[in-house]
Amino acid sequence: MTEQYVTANITPLDSLDTLSPFEVAKLQDRNQAGLYPLFRQCALAVLNCGSEEDSTKQVLEKHKNFDIRVSQKHRGVQLELINAPASAFVDGEIIQGIREHLFSVLRDLLYVGDELDKCCDGLQEGEQITNMVFHILRHAKAIEPHVKPNLVVCWGGHSIGREEYIYTKQVGYELGLRGMSVCTGCGPGAMKGPMKGATIAHAKQRISDARYVGISEPGIIAAESPNPIVNELIIMPDIEKRLEAFVRLGHGIIVFPGGAGTAEEILYMLGILLHERNSTCPFPLIFTGPEGSEVYFETVDRFIRSTLGDRAASLYEIVVGDPYEVAVKMKAGLERVTIYRKATGESFHFNWQLYIPSEFQQPFEPTHENMAALNLSRDQPDYLLAATLRQALSGIVAGNVKAPGIRAIEEFGPFELTGEPELVNELDVLLSSFVLQRRMKIDYEEYDPCYRLVQAEIA
Amino acid sequence: MTEQYVTANITPLDSLDTLSPFEVAKLQDRNQAGLYPLFRQCALAVLNCGSEEDSTKQVLEKHKNFDIRVSQKHRGVQLELINAPASAFVDGEIIQGIREHLFSVLRDLLYVGDELDKCCDGLQEGEQITNMVFHILRHAKAIEPHVKPNLVVCWGGHSIGREEYIYTKQVGYELGLRGMSVCTGCGPGAMKGPMKGATIAHAKQRISDARYVGISEPGIIAAESPNPIVNELIIMPDIEKRLEAFVRLGHGIIVFPGGAGTAEEILYMLGILLHERNSTCPFPLIFTGPEGSEVYFETVDRFIRSTLGDRAASLYEIVVGDPYEVAVKMKAGLERVTIYRKATGESFHFNWQLYIPSEFQQPFEPTHENMAALNLSRDQPDYLLAATLRQALSGIVAGNVKAPGIRAIEEFGPFELTGEPELVNELDVLLSSFVLQRRMKIDYEEYDPCYRLVQAEIA
Amino acid sequence: MTEQYVTANITPLDSLDTLSPFEVAKLQDRNQAGLYPLFRQCALAVLNCGSEEDSTKQVLEKHKNFDIRVSQKHRGVQLELINAPASAFVDGEIIQGIREHLFSVLRDLLYVGDELDKCCDGLQEGEQITNMVFHILRHAKAIEPHVKPNLVVCWGGHSIGREEYIYTKQVGYELGLRGMSVCTGCGPGAMKGPMKGATIAHAKQRISDARYVGISEPGIIAAESPNPIVNELIIMPDIEKRLEAFVRLGHGIIVFPGGAGTAEEILYMLGILLHERNSTCPFPLIFTGPEGSEVYFETVDRFIRSTLGDRAASLYEIVVGDPYEVAVKMKAGLERVTIYRKATGESFHFNWQLYIPSEFQQPFEPTHENMAALNLSRDQPDYLLAATLRQALSGIVAGNVKAPGIRAIEEFGPFELTGEPELVNELDVLLSSFVLQRRMKIDYEEYDPCYRLVQAEIA
Amino acid sequence: MTEQYVTANITPLDSLDTLSPFEVAKLQDRNQAGLYPLFRQCALAVLNCGSEEDSTKQVLEKHKNFDIRVSQKHRGVQLELINAPASAFVDGEIIQGIREHLFSVLRDLLYVGDELDKCCDGLQEGEQITNMVFHILRHAKAIEPHVKPNLVVCWGGHSIGREEYIYTKQVGYELGLRGMSVCTGCGPGAMKGPMKGATIAHAKQRISDARYVGISEPGIIAAESPNPIVNELIIMPDIEKRLEAFVRLGHGIIVFPGGAGTAEEILYMLGILLHERNSTCPFPLIFTGPEGSEVYFETVDRFIRSTLGDRAASLYEIVVGDPYEVAVKMKAGLERVTIYRKATGESFHFNWQLYIPSEFQQPFEPTHENMAALNLSRDQPDYLLAATLRQALSGIVAGNVKAPGIRAIEEFGPFELTGEPELVNELDVLLSSFVLQRRMKIDYEEYDPCYRLVQAEIA
Repeated sequence: MTEQYVTANITPLDSLDTLSPFEVAKLQDRNQAGLYPLFRQCALAVLNCGSEEDSTKQVLEKHKNFDIRVSQKHRGVQLELINAPASAFVDGEIIQGIREHLFSVLRDLLYVGDELDKCCDGLQEGEQITNMVFHILRHAKAIEPHVKPNLVVCWGGHSIGREEYIYTKQVGYELGLRGMSVCTGCGPGAMKGPMKGATIAHAKQRISDARYVGISEPGIIAAESPNPIVNELIIMPDIEKRLEAFVRLGHGIIVFPGGAGTAEEILYMLGILLHERNSTCPFPLIFTGPEGSEVYFETVDRFIRSTLGDRAASLYEIVVGDPYEVAVKMKAGLERVTIYRKATGESFHFNWQLYIPSEFQQPFEPTHENMAALNLSRDQPDYLLAATLRQALSGIVAGNVKAPGIRAIEEFGPFELTGEPELVNELDVLLSSFVLQRRMKIDYEEYDPCYRLVQAEIA
Repeated sequence: MTEQYVTANITPLDSLDTLSPFEVAKLQDRNQAGLYPLFRQCALAVLNCGSEEDSTKQVLEKHKNFDIRVSQKHRGVQLELINAPASAFVDGEIIQGIREHLFSVLRDLLYVGDELDKCCDGLQEGEQITNMVFHILRHAKAIEPHVKPNLVVCWGGHSIGREEYIYTKQVGYELGLRGMSVCTGCGPGAMKGPMKGATIAHAKQRISDARYVGISEPGIIAAESPNPIVNELIIMPDIEKRLEAFVRLGHGIIVFPGGAGTAEEILYMLGILLHERNSTCPFPLIFTGPEGSEVYFETVDRFIRSTLGDRAASLYEIVVGDPYEVAVKMKAGLERVTIYRKATGESFHFNWQLYIPSEFQQPFEPTHENMAALNLSRDQPDYLLAATLRQALSGIVAGNVKAPGIRAIEEFGPFELTGEPELVNELDVLLSSFVLQRRMKIDYEEYDPCYRLVQAEIA
Repeated sequence: MTEQYVTANITPLDSLDTLSPFEVAKLQDRNQAGLYPLFRQCALAVLNCGSEEDSTKQVLEKHKNFDIRVSQKHRGVQLELINAPASAFVDGEIIQGIREHLFSVLRDLLYVGDELDKCCDGLQEGEQITNMVFHILRHAKAIEPHVKPNLVVCWGGHSIGREEYIYTKQVGYELGLRGMSVCTGCGPGAMKGPMKGATIAHAKQRISDARYVGISEPGIIAAESPNPIVNELIIMPDIEKRLEAFVRLGHGIIVFPGGAGTAEEILYMLGILLHERNSTCPFPLIFTGPEGSEVYFETVDRFIRSTLGDRAASLYEIVVGDPYEVAVKMKAGLERVTIYRKATGESFHFNWQLYIPSEFQQPFEPTHENMAALNLSRDQPDYLLAATLRQALSGIVAGNVKAPGIRAIEEFGPFELTGEPELVNELDVLLSSFVLQRRMKIDYEEYDPCYRLVQAEIA
Repeated sequence: MTEQYVTANITPLDSLDTLSPFEVAKLQDRNQAGLYPLFRQCALAVLNCGSEEDSTKQVLEKHKNFDIRVSQKHRGVQLELINAPASAFVDGEIIQGIREHLFSVLRDLLYVGDELDKCCDGLQEGEQITNMVFHILRHAKAIEPHVKPNLVVCWGGHSIGREEYIYTKQVGYELGLRGMSVCTGCGPGAMKGPMKGATIAHAKQRISDARYVGISEPGIIAAESPNPIVNELIIMPDIEKRLEAFVRLGHGIIVFPGGAGTAEEILYMLGILLHERNSTCPFPLIFTGPEGSEVYFETVDRFIRSTLGDRAASLYEIVVGDPYEVAVKMKAGLERVTIYRKATGESFHFNWQLYIPSEFQQPFEPTHENMAALNLSRDQPDYLLAATLRQALSGIVAGNVKAPGIRAIEEFGPFELTGEPELVNELDVLLSSFVLQRRMKIDYEEYDPCYRLVQAEIA
């Protein structure tokens, strides 16, 4: 297995994809407006799975000779891969899961860029975004009616220790034994472990239609390559729609230890659930890790209580070192979701009722200016503070692993976050603990914070 | 089975359909712009299968109390049918094939009215139309890559005699024995027989994935209710796109005896094949009927030779009373299509290369004015004359069975078609023979021609 | 399609069959004890489907050059066919249904001849026979648990008129619309029509797992070649086990007009149901035919009433010219069967509880001696008289169409049946009506009765 | 998860099983001749999976209150479990894989005890045994024609260390990536690891029909409970037929470190391959373990060379610490097998050609007398010496973990093995190393050898 690159032609397994000549042209269009740059980047991420890099920039540089071309043959579409990472192949044959992922990428990029473009005219902005999320998921066949709530979203760090990784497998195993399916953000670590565990359990339970849903977006995919076990890969257009897809498609959420990205996800979820319009909506939310990870959850719990208050802390449960307990609690939670949806006539397959305030739907662009302008103060409704903190953490993720974020930090130095002293202090404690616990980046030894915290002067 | 109407709730069999609240609203919208009137009309047609009426107007009047409502339940979309035709039900349960058809209608109307609306910007008009045809078919999962050309389009009258009907079954049987699938226009008669014959043959050959494709459009569907054997029903937006769908999706065409509609289809096909850009493209085209139907084909053949010339007549073969021969010739023809597509890199599943001149793609509205303006003269390229004759016949079909056409005739009298004397004479012979052979309408005894032929004065 | 014979190699479609070298040797063994003669004869019958001959002797003579050889290849078993009837092939390829039938024959002959041979030691004779029937059916995968009673046995003549044939299709269609499956004796006529009708209905109802069960036995198969629609062909070792398979596997029975064979089946069923041990067991039994077939059922009904009495006549219903009514009555009957089986804990898939008296289980060999010895007298329990009459009719079928029967008649003249004058008289009326109605043989014009009725002198 | 025992009713998932009343009676028959004791013991083993005990005796004692009853319901067979081990259940529901195993046990016990009993009359003894192995496997649907050789048998210890276990998973993963299926002896350790690894790889390769075949026998199953991943469980009647099933069904063998049982398997395989009639037959045989296991293979290799000679050693390859290499070598080996089978016309699915000398087919009963009588001398053909050594090791396995063996040792003390001094010496080295490396039993600390080696006096 000495060769590092493979050049190969790939056709879809099933009647997955047929393209029009115009779609082929779009995928080949290397202009700014064309889909080629995006398609190449996502395809590379998919092929690069198994890699230990989480810096988009480094991935792109290492594979600068990679190319991908699309053509239409008499039997269907064909992809030509040039200098693709060898890890995607076994004895010269591409791994089938990765083959599927390539065509999922193609499917979603074309759909978002083309058919969906002008849909939903006449709706209000928030409705339009939700509708777009629904259309993308439905087009990707991720909307499955007639199925009782059983899709558990697993969040957590891509860079976790061995013990924590084994624990995520055990939780996945217990979920799988109970017939639950798993949805994650696609990368390694806490996003891969539950799927592996569930795979073994599903094999024992002879469940052949289990779902391993991976939801990504172009900005993060290169840093979090989808594991080939993922059998439904969906590329949402941006991070906010990715988060919305998680909470509308999933029926419950388990959070494993993680870094800034995980904290961002926690704040997103809590912010939504804190909004009064969602006060009756059951949403199982469990934080869990193995024995030894208590510190992590104490830190997070303390941060939440001191910033968003105890009501926010009442929305989740913390379970330490007990995969069986996690699965049993989640199963009971899904039962409550089922009862609620039946009672309210809400569909099992998409949570239309959940209200997502505009502050969580609007894309946040983490420029130095936008980061500096964040209102880090407790003098606002709790859900809005959650939204602001979510944006702050989103910016830090970008500065850590996303290509434009890394470039911005290189050029202008760390982001500056200014706010209420006590709040900034709590944030400092949280982020420092992530650095200390080596949760910021895979390559933690050289981690150099991409942010600077500033206590606002008291007027 | 005395009751005539049934009221029932219907859910899709599979995970066929999930709708957004906005789509549900559109389907319920009874305004001019809303989809409700169109949806109600098509749904009624689907439910009315087995009826012996071919007048859209009469169907709509008979079922004026029919209503359909859409709602979203926690397990998926649900249709509420009120006063639906009892023939669609067995012991109170809807026939599954009809259930599927209802959801196919819903799928296509929403797609055409919504997502597809603004697709294909930047393309030329002809390309846009072709692209739209492709998108609708792909969205309906009618595009199947990886399958060798085997889809045979069967055209012919919905109002044919017993002998002819049995003959169409025999031809379908021989096609089915050879693994071919069948595509028709959905109605009774020559559109139903081949599917029934093929069904028996496919059962004997243990072919479980055979396709029985029915392609219709809102204007004709009420007059030609889809047979429940149809396992892929597609509603194209108008007659020209329906015709384009036939020739791009199908790999060969068999024409059984028919009336004005069948002649329209023949002229459409010949016109396209006559165009020089299609001169090398193989397209098997066989006219066939049982012993005793020679007269019919002689009339048609004579009409084609005297109007479009012998080159046009060289594009088809006539086989009388030999289903085995028809199937063997078609199989050989499909083999030529396969070789050609491989050689030219054209896809098996959609005939992009076939050039369809604008005159065949543009919707023709059969008003009295437009009909009168048709240039019925041989002083034009053969393919253009074919296009014009196709439009003339399309107008006559509208006057016979379509609601707006019937209304126009009631109000303004028959359409007037004026042209070159010899040409008009040939047309007269053709149409008169259709009347004589009772091919114009199911209810032939009361047939009153909706057209009047006028020989233009020689300048 | 001029060639009459085809030579070809055939492999099973699925992983249907793997044979040991010892099994291959048995199938090749042309000695008396070997399976070759039986296998050749049954294989020929299967390949000869569509033929209009019902004389086993003629079939065998016509195809005396037919040969079949079995071999084992690295991918599985292979059959070599030499001079096989061309009607089994389409463009040189064997029809898949027929291919399956060949391997069903092979499966059953080997199983009966080998593995089953000494099973069931220690059971009583009647139990042994029933157990053997069960084992053969289970080995053929004809026992389907978890399915509600829905298998309708259709009996009736292989030589029926056009109107009657169309009627059997209509009944099959109505059964199929209601999800019922069909089981027959495999031949043409009333055994083929219901399957064709049901096939169309199942296609409309999207029922893809419908069963078309054909149960034959080596003595009759050549005269009643299985239709390729049959998707479960089972070869029972003799006629009594075939009849037992019908009544234990099927959940209800429809009888169409027929000849001696059909009358044999009716007497078999009535004889069993008349036995007191079956008095509470519901068994839907409907005699039906189109308008114009009243005479037939009147004759049969009169014969039953005058020989077995009115209680026997109360066990069936007669429906004339109403396929819808037949299907609705049968559906209601199956519902009663379902309730009864649940109440008594009897399995849905095999009617163990039905008591079959020894006189119906023991093979009856129709020699001249045995025929002459039949006790045709009403001075015995009704069920025993039914058994005796059944044997008489079985002998007549043998004399009409089975090879050894025909040979015996050629050698020794017609069978002589002697009995109570009134009874013999009734039998004469019945049989004469079959001759008159041309129900004895396909080639009815040359029919020469193979029996002679003699009124016993009164002691 | 505090409860230890569960009582539940179990029905088969599929139309797996229908039983006759006579079969039900046999399974309930608690007499010596009845199947109940055997069925109960095997069912308990299947339910006890995940347990860490490998002493049949202890398992049986611990679960002495376990009971199982069979009944026939209207929908099919039902098993009633009383005091079953709780580990087989999740939230009160039996794990599906275990459910399947219960019905596999039932299937094989009935088949072997009943239908198969008198099959194969007229064959020679060796042929009869091979034929019986074939019949059992075919009846269990383990014979799959049309599939290229891809079934890799994995042998090795049930009691191995963590590092070795992880290694077996890695090898399974590499096999799975290349589409190979896995067959083992069902227990924990080296029999479970490869299946888990392959499961993950098959998920990535979207291989949904992968086989995880477990072949056991009543004597060993309680000590080596099948892992629920096993999706084809087969219970052979005795250890010799189990070994024959491995080598006729599998296409190549990988041996991981193990104890006496593994050595027995190695000697079985080498003995057969040493026979001159198998000299041209390719049979990939790879010994492998992680870095650190070199000592083990050196010991085994030395033992083989010094007893059976270098020719025996040329029949296998040793690979240390390289799962990739193992998989690539095995794939190449299977390619050779494929070519050879095609060339010789041997079936892909069952290796009929492999000659198994009578000494390997005859059941060896490990009594003290038989063990003492073994001819441990090099003064015999190599394959016979291998057979003798195989029997010696088989006896030691019985003394370690099988119930009758343990009882015999308790009563009469250790087996005595007498032989040629040098040979006995080599055997001592081998067995001592197993003890030292803790490979004899899971509960190694209390291991007390069940054998005594005696050097024969030189005559």
